[in-house]
Amino acid sequence: MSLIVQKFGGSSVADAASIRRVARRVVETRDAGNDVVVVVSAMGDTTDELIDLANEVAPKPPAREMDMLLTSGERISMSLLAMAVSAYGAPAQSFTGSQAGMITDGDHGAASLVEVNPERIRESLDQGNIAIVAGFQGVHRATKDITTLGRGGSDTTAVALAAALDADVCEIYSDVDGVFTADPRIAPKAHKLEEISSEEMLEMAANGAKILHLRCVEYARRFGVKLHVRSSFTHHEGTWVIPSPDDTTVSVHTQEIPLEQPLIAGIAHDRTQAKITVVGVPDRPGIASGIFRLLADAKVNVDMIVQNVSVSDEKTTDLSVTIPETQGDLAMSMLRAAEEKIGYASLEYNDQVGKLSLVGAGMKSNPGVSFTFFDALAEHDINIDMISTSEVRISVVTAADRLDEAVRAVHSAFGLDSQQDAAVYGGTGR
Amino acid sequence: MSLIVQKFGGSSVADAASIRRVARRVVETRDAGNDVVVVVSAMGDTTDELIDLANEVAPKPPAREMDMLLTSGERISMSLLAMAVSAYGAPAQSFTGSQAGMITDGDHGAASLVEVNPERIRESLDQGNIAIVAGFQGVHRATKDITTLGRGGSDTTAVALAAALDADVCEIYSDVDGVFTADPRIAPKAHKLEEISSEEMLEMAANGAKILHLRCVEYARRFGVKLHVRSSFTHHEGTWVIPSPDDTTVSVHTQEIPLEQPLIAGIAHDRTQAKITVVGVPDRPGIASGIFRLLADAKVNVDMIVQNVSVSDEKTTDLSVTIPETQGDLAMSMLRAAEEKIGYASLEYNDQVGKLSLVGAGMKSNPGVSFTFFDALAEHDINIDMISTSEVRISVVTAADRLDEAVRAVHSAFGLDSQQDAAVYGGTGR
Repeated sequence: MSLIVQKFGGSSVADAASIRRVARRVVETRDAGNDVVVVVSAMGDTTDELIDLANEVAPKPPAREMDMLLTSGERISMSLLAMAVSAYGAPAQSFTGSQAGMITDGDHGAASLVEVNPERIRESLDQGNIAIVAGFQGVHRATKDITTLGRGGSDTTAVALAAALDADVCEIYSDVDGVFTADPRIAPKAHKLEEISSEEMLEMAANGAKILHLRCVEYARRFGVKLHVRSSFTHHEGTWVIPSPDDTTVSVHTQEIPLEQPLIAGIAHDRTQAKITVVGVPDRPGIASGIFRLLADAKVNVDMIVQNVSVSDEKTTDLSVTIPETQGDLAMSMLRAAEEKIGYASLEYNDQVGKLSLVGAGMKSNPGVSFTFFDALAEHDINIDMISTSEVRISVVTAADRLDEAVRAVHSAFGLDSQQDAAVYGGTGR
Repeated sequence: MSLIVQKFGGSSVADAASIRRVARRVVETRDAGNDVVVVVSAMGDTTDELIDLANEVAPKPPAREMDMLLTSGERISMSLLAMAVSAYGAPAQSFTGSQAGMITDGDHGAASLVEVNPERIRESLDQGNIAIVAGFQGVHRATKDITTLGRGGSDTTAVALAAALDADVCEIYSDVDGVFTADPRIAPKAHKLEEISSEEMLEMAANGAKILHLRCVEYARRFGVKLHVRSSFTHHEGTWVIPSPDDTTVSVHTQEIPLEQPLIAGIAHDRTQAKITVVGVPDRPGIASGIFRLLADAKVNVDMIVQNVSVSDEKTTDLSVTIPETQGDLAMSMLRAAEEKIGYASLEYNDQVGKLSLVGAGMKSNPGVSFTFFDALAEHDINIDMISTSEVRISVVTAADRLDEAVRAVHSAFGLDSQQDAAVYGGTGR
């Protein structure tokens, strides 16, 4: 008998009919001889509606109360799902995050798990129940106040429970068939991956792929949890995200990469970034770090960094960074305020940029990857603004209006195109 | 400094504007120098909407899950109210029933309080907060499952907290100005009582007055909690419900009734009963008790009982009872099934009946009350079907279409009519 954790997002439980459909699926899984733990998000737009209500009663709702409010969303979906499961003849019990032993720190709105004690879940399973757990929520050990894990927190709940219960697999259900080689809305010939390493998935998620949250993939990788990303609308196999025992030591020299390891896993893209260039920065030690400290203090998330080589006699350089577009105003005002201290010539801001990331563990040992990548972009006359690389990823920044073409060009160049369009899989690229 | 518990029902927190209005009132109470604990119901029709959702996903939702579902209603209203209170500048914290220490038995849907441990509420007050508590809910000590106290449970939560915290008063807010001498929709000259004893209030509530739930009045009486029933739409004084130290010993002989004790507190009425007459029952010991055991086993709530004197040689009698109309079918089918065993001649069922109850602690020592009462009904040619009395109450059953006239006749006969119509008080008689 296997233990399976299944996570269903808000769109999978948006109304009574959807909840009944999920319930049937859960009961099928149990009837196939498995123990089942289900993690569920709030129904459809419930969370957004509750946030709207909060803003109607208070301009700045206290974070403790916001968490208390939002956690009612999963309380509703989980109890309804437990009822629906019972109606299909399988005993079920629902549990809040607190009841399921999701112990967090006290950072309301973005709490981190500090411990998972799923005793009540184990007991409930032992009694023959399907256990249904509220995603996204926990309880602060010290104050016993209710907390939330922030956006995407339900995935984290599912993976954390799977780890604590030593589950055989953690299934993440959505309205998409799995992880694709690229967003099928942009690259119609993208195909679904049968498998991807957690290291690759981490790079995909960190660079714009929205199907799994970065935090959940990190957690799964750290605790060796096998993820199965699949659609709640079909029974097709989705994509398995396989944790490597120790990703950092994988290399061809030790034969630890399976022979069938594909060169490239896929292409992620991201339109949510903006680029800031600080022009004419004095090329002296400490100046760059001063700029980064400034941005770090303002909690601006700097992603890519490129410093031009100092070429003139002026001993100045240009420093470009990408940051989330939503933090653009903040970052620019911080930099403007520090003009005198830094001593730059000017600031440039550009939010019409896109980022493309090619991800593949196989590229570690294949020097030809870079050539194929840049050649494909050159063939299409696509200008590259910034470059950054990791062992398993190459990212470039292009003009926003060239990004889609760039994704298609690279997808083709690496032979990722399938024979048929991805649309037939039902994938929406979410 | 006083400690005041304020309870607001669902209609008082039906939307964002209402919640802000309640928040202002709560903050005013605190600004007047009081410690304030607020007990709140779910917003408007939330509970009914959640019940509808439950019925959409499961024909017979398990009671444990129904409680989990319904308790999300107060979680929403309490956190929104805490936000609104904070927005008016007063620190506030909301607490679930479980967090507030409302410990119950495991009777899901109709749990009874077995203990109240409001340590967290006390701490929160000591830290200078307004504490906002979810009404209607608690936690089962043994299983740690969430429970609800049943309909009207929020009033019980408020009174139980007031008792446990030794509050100076428990204010019950609704859209009505207080307790009236009769329902102003029926008797327009009914007037608001300034004060009523908890014994009288108990009889009013038990006999159809809907402003306070019987259980809450019983609790308040038992623990000596002073209730103040008032409107959340005005600042007028409402009606004080005063617990007598020992109601059962009050008598004129020992001068324990204050001289200003009014003869009559008010008139309650009830349209929700049906009358069953078992005709031709053998007048033998054990037969009547057999009928009552039958009804008790089916959990039918028998209210009034009248057995006619056996007059004929047949040695048979007629037995009439009133029961809730909603249990009419159940009771009739139980009786039909036992026809042979009981050996009655026939069954009569009538749901076109009304019950009128005259309540007043003063009637204990005033033999003239019965005369005035029956004379008023006779004057209006109103036929009396059944009679029952307690020390402080006379109840009669009449035809349903004569009930309103009966209420007005008795109201006038006891000099309860005010100079002006009750409508000017804004009372709706709920």
